[in-house]
Amino acid sequence: MELSGAFANRRVLITGALGFIGSNLTRRLIDLGARVLLVDSLIPEYGGNLFNIEGIEDRVLVNISDVRDAHSMRYLVQGQDYLFNLAGQTSHMDSMSDPDADLEINCRAQLSILEACRKYNSSIKVVFASTRQLYGKPDYLPVDEKHLSRPVDVNGINKMAGEWYHILYNNVYGIRACSLRLTNTYGPRMRVKDARQTFLGLWMRMLVEGKPFEVWEGHQLRDFTYVDDAVDAFLMAAASEAANGEIFNLGGDCVISLNELAKLLVEINGDGEFVTRSYPADRKRIDIGDYYADFSRIRSALGWKPVVPLREGLSRTLAFYKEHLPKYL
Amino acid sequence: MELSGAFANRRVLITGALGFIGSNLTRRLIDLGARVLLVDSLIPEYGGNLFNIEGIEDRVLVNISDVRDAHSMRYLVQGQDYLFNLAGQTSHMDSMSDPDADLEINCRAQLSILEACRKYNSSIKVVFASTRQLYGKPDYLPVDEKHLSRPVDVNGINKMAGEWYHILYNNVYGIRACSLRLTNTYGPRMRVKDARQTFLGLWMRMLVEGKPFEVWEGHQLRDFTYVDDAVDAFLMAAASEAANGEIFNLGGDCVISLNELAKLLVEINGDGEFVTRSYPADRKRIDIGDYYADFSRIRSALGWKPVVPLREGLSRTLAFYKEHLPKYL
Repeated sequence: MELSGAFANRRVLITGALGFIGSNLTRRLIDLGARVLLVDSLIPEYGGNLFNIEGIEDRVLVNISDVRDAHSMRYLVQGQDYLFNLAGQTSHMDSMSDPDADLEINCRAQLSILEACRKYNSSIKVVFASTRQLYGKPDYLPVDEKHLSRPVDVNGINKMAGEWYHILYNNVYGIRACSLRLTNTYGPRMRVKDARQTFLGLWMRMLVEGKPFEVWEGHQLRDFTYVDDAVDAFLMAAASEAANGEIFNLGGDCVISLNELAKLLVEINGDGEFVTRSYPADRKRIDIGDYYADFSRIRSALGWKPVVPLREGLSRTLAFYKEHLPKYL
Repeated sequence: MELSGAFANRRVLITGALGFIGSNLTRRLIDLGARVLLVDSLIPEYGGNLFNIEGIEDRVLVNISDVRDAHSMRYLVQGQDYLFNLAGQTSHMDSMSDPDADLEINCRAQLSILEACRKYNSSIKVVFASTRQLYGKPDYLPVDEKHLSRPVDVNGINKMAGEWYHILYNNVYGIRACSLRLTNTYGPRMRVKDARQTFLGLWMRMLVEGKPFEVWEGHQLRDFTYVDDAVDAFLMAAASEAANGEIFNLGGDCVISLNELAKLLVEINGDGEFVTRSYPADRKRIDIGDYYADFSRIRSALGWKPVVPLREGLSRTLAFYKEHLPKYL
């Protein structure tokens, strides 16, 4: 797919733009000639980090605001050609301890952003960052988009609602929108301070700091998308009319157990150790078991597939944090 | 199932209790010897009507409050054995024109009620009134619980989230809860002032007033549950531990097109007329086409099935409104 034609000189709004995927997406969009407006709340517990746009500060516009602020969002969506709607509360554990905050961000803010689009910019194209979490514990593997949604935590429920608001506004109001159900996404600029965004972030941090990291259980199978591949999917979904109203799984180039992943990481690092332990009780009860995605739907519709092999992606990510870790603590 | 043992002298809280199903449920529970606390907001656009408890006022406790009022709900759930959680915004059209109110009632209030149960009364048993609306336009008929949820309006999305909060709190916190996905429910005490609760209410009103009623399209297939049958399902679900964490469709004793239903209604009434027209545009775009439920899951698990035939149920309902219509206008 030829992307520069779709984005050169186009106005692009990204929510959660100072976060992991948002900032990597921003970098690609700048290369493609887009005029990017970055919205982020910089809440310390979430993914936003100003260092994520180091070196490109002069080529973007940054607006600090929260997607729950319906007033600012109403203004900011106006005149934009694209909205990459990435802002979200991502922690499964936090969604259980503070379900109301998760609802405000992942449900209500999404609905109010879409209402703003409907009223003030109905020609915008929206791509929503959804999650595999809404499938819950899979009935079968790999999981395709026909699998029932049976979320096992508040985050999964609210993301499910947030996703469907997008599909609804596409179908009923013609606000072109689609949703990508992300699996574990990893790469430079992910949160590594703790496991709120991804456990792999915390693993990397410990490894770089020369401390043992913890593998919970370890037998679970997972798939992983390198962030550049995820960014490709967002761009292709935005540029293609065939994506409107659609829901697509993303996936990885391979399936791996967490134990094997931990070993691979230590091997790539040339050093390091990890300990295996069982789940804490509060984590255990929202566990989804094995998960990996069937991503044939987006491959057929948009031609997307992951191209960065896991080993290569982990190497690049490790190299990034070896250089920049202090900026992420 | 022997129900009186389950409810005699037990404390029961009903939200939306002055509404259609809530008030019919209340009457049954009183007969079963329960001590019933009725919560309703009496918002004029919704289903609550004090006439619905005419003749039993002295045998129940009425508390006017809104489920969005987390403070009152926190107090009211305490000490209750059962919660029949029926309060909801039911209008599909209203959910589109005021999505935020629908979200507040059907999502946020549900989550805060469940949080109140978790913190202050974790031994309560909760039965949630869900809806077929969350299936959207069926892929196949009859629709069973394995059908994907693809809601076509804001109400369907928010009810889907509300339902899943209940299942989640059952699975994670052991707050025993289950959900009934209602299809068209009809009978005495339904709202007939307009079509906000069910189109059949408005049809009945027009018929009793001797005016022609409107059938939109008419070819759509539907199923109908008489309210006494729906009440049975709520009671059986509450009394059975086998229902915990489960989602069940309700259904009807037959499948009928709206045209045939209109003819049947006129025939039972012995008089009357209707006109057929096409959908208004804003209604058309959230239409679900044909729908009828497979209710074999609740039949197997709890032994429930509809027992009041459609013709009999319509006769009883017509007789009720011929006597009491002014109380519902």
